[in-house]
Amino acid sequence: MTERDPHATAVIDLLGLVAYGELTAFERLAADAGLSPTLDGKAELAGMAAAEFGHFRTVRARLAELGAEPTEAMDPFREPVDAFHEHTRPSGWLESLVKAYIGDTLAADFHREAARFLDPDSRAVVEAVLQDMGQAAFVVGHVRAAIAADPKVAGRLALWARRIMGEALTQAQHVATRRSALAALLIGELGMPEPDGSRSPVDPGEVGAMFDRLTAAHGKRMAQLGLNA
Amino acid sequence: MTERDPHATAVIDLLGLVAYGELTAFERLAADAGLSPTLDGKAELAGMAAAEFGHFRTVRARLAELGAEPTEAMDPFREPVDAFHEHTRPSGWLESLVKAYIGDTLAADFHREAARFLDPDSRAVVEAVLQDMGQAAFVVGHVRAAIAADPKVAGRLALWARRIMGEALTQAQHVATRRSALAALLIGELGMPEPDGSRSPVDPGEVGAMFDRLTAAHGKRMAQLGLNA
Repeated sequence: MTERDPHATAVIDLLGLVAYGELTAFERLAADAGLSPTLDGKAELAGMAAAEFGHFRTVRARLAELGAEPTEAMDPFREPVDAFHEHTRPSGWLESLVKAYIGDTLAADFHREAARFLDPDSRAVVEAVLQDMGQAAFVVGHVRAAIAADPKVAGRLALWARRIMGEALTQAQHVATRRSALAALLIGELGMPEPDGSRSPVDPGEVGAMFDRLTAAHGKRMAQLGLNA
Repeated sequence: MTERDPHATAVIDLLGLVAYGELTAFERLAADAGLSPTLDGKAELAGMAAAEFGHFRTVRARLAELGAEPTEAMDPFREPVDAFHEHTRPSGWLESLVKAYIGDTLAADFHREAARFLDPDSRAVVEAVLQDMGQAAFVVGHVRAAIAADPKVAGRLALWARRIMGEALTQAQHVATRRSALAALLIGELGMPEPDGSRSPVDPGEVGAMFDRLTAAHGKRMAQLGLNA
């Protein structure tokens, strides 16, 4: 398998995207920890940030293992990922909590879907960074309490969560148009790996099914937060 | 040993100070990672930040083990530690590297000195957070290269490092005047723990010797960076 092989290119791209996503998630969560009105909340977001950094390190190591230069692999994704964060800057503590939760779980769902198309070793790396960071209970508790105290908060936060989802889709679109091997991998054009190392064709309806799964999971989490999707 | 026992109070104070120091070191390093001109540098500072968070978690767990409320234990140190960071905001990447290195190693030296006065279990916790974060080689290499490229940089960075040391001493003074049990512990007034659980008197000359050791180690690191102490 040479560098030019579309599957190898797509794997490096995917790992580069995941790595840069984790590194910037670290940065944003660490910065947002400063918005916390309490030391407990600050420690909670800081803990999520530290976990993201651990994920980044795992993925970076896999890139190096595959002979890729991690910085080069991440580079094509700096612009869209930075734009995502630029357009979703929380203006307060509750917005930062919703972003941490919605953003991270969306990313995890996407990683889970993408991992299915990878060779077993890279799949194991991507699945390893899916570990639950334990933030759900903390975020859900805080957001629901804030809505109970002031029901108007729910409408504002629902708009905010929709903006995060919309911006994620916009930037995903940008990535897909510029990184054709990665896009081909994710829509199943490169096939699904089989235990014998061959790749079997993917049902064309699978792309739509994947979007449905991502949307349904997002909707469920919005409901959990007490927000309309 | 009740809460009122000066040694128990001093231990909680010391752990609270260390915990808040680690949490804010995490925050500042994570923020300073954004000053890096390269992804490698960003990852390096982010890694240091994540390590600081790991230390914070260890110390917080020890506070809880001792029956202290971690947030309450940290609270008295928010003002001086925040003031330290407020007065030492790096204005660029090189300043952030020097602060990361000088600030962290000063803190580590202080922890090592303070640990000697603690009961074995708390001492083990404080010593565990002394692990080398491996930043020395990265920082020293970058700072020396910058000085080689433009020797004028050395004077500016030496002033900067002196400001960090001066600010650390200023805030340490504030802490000492407000937290008398902690100050008594650190100057040896509460004695040194013996294997049988008793405490033996400390030579009064020990305080001066401790300051001499801290200053000498700082001077050595300045020289390593290519800076005049």
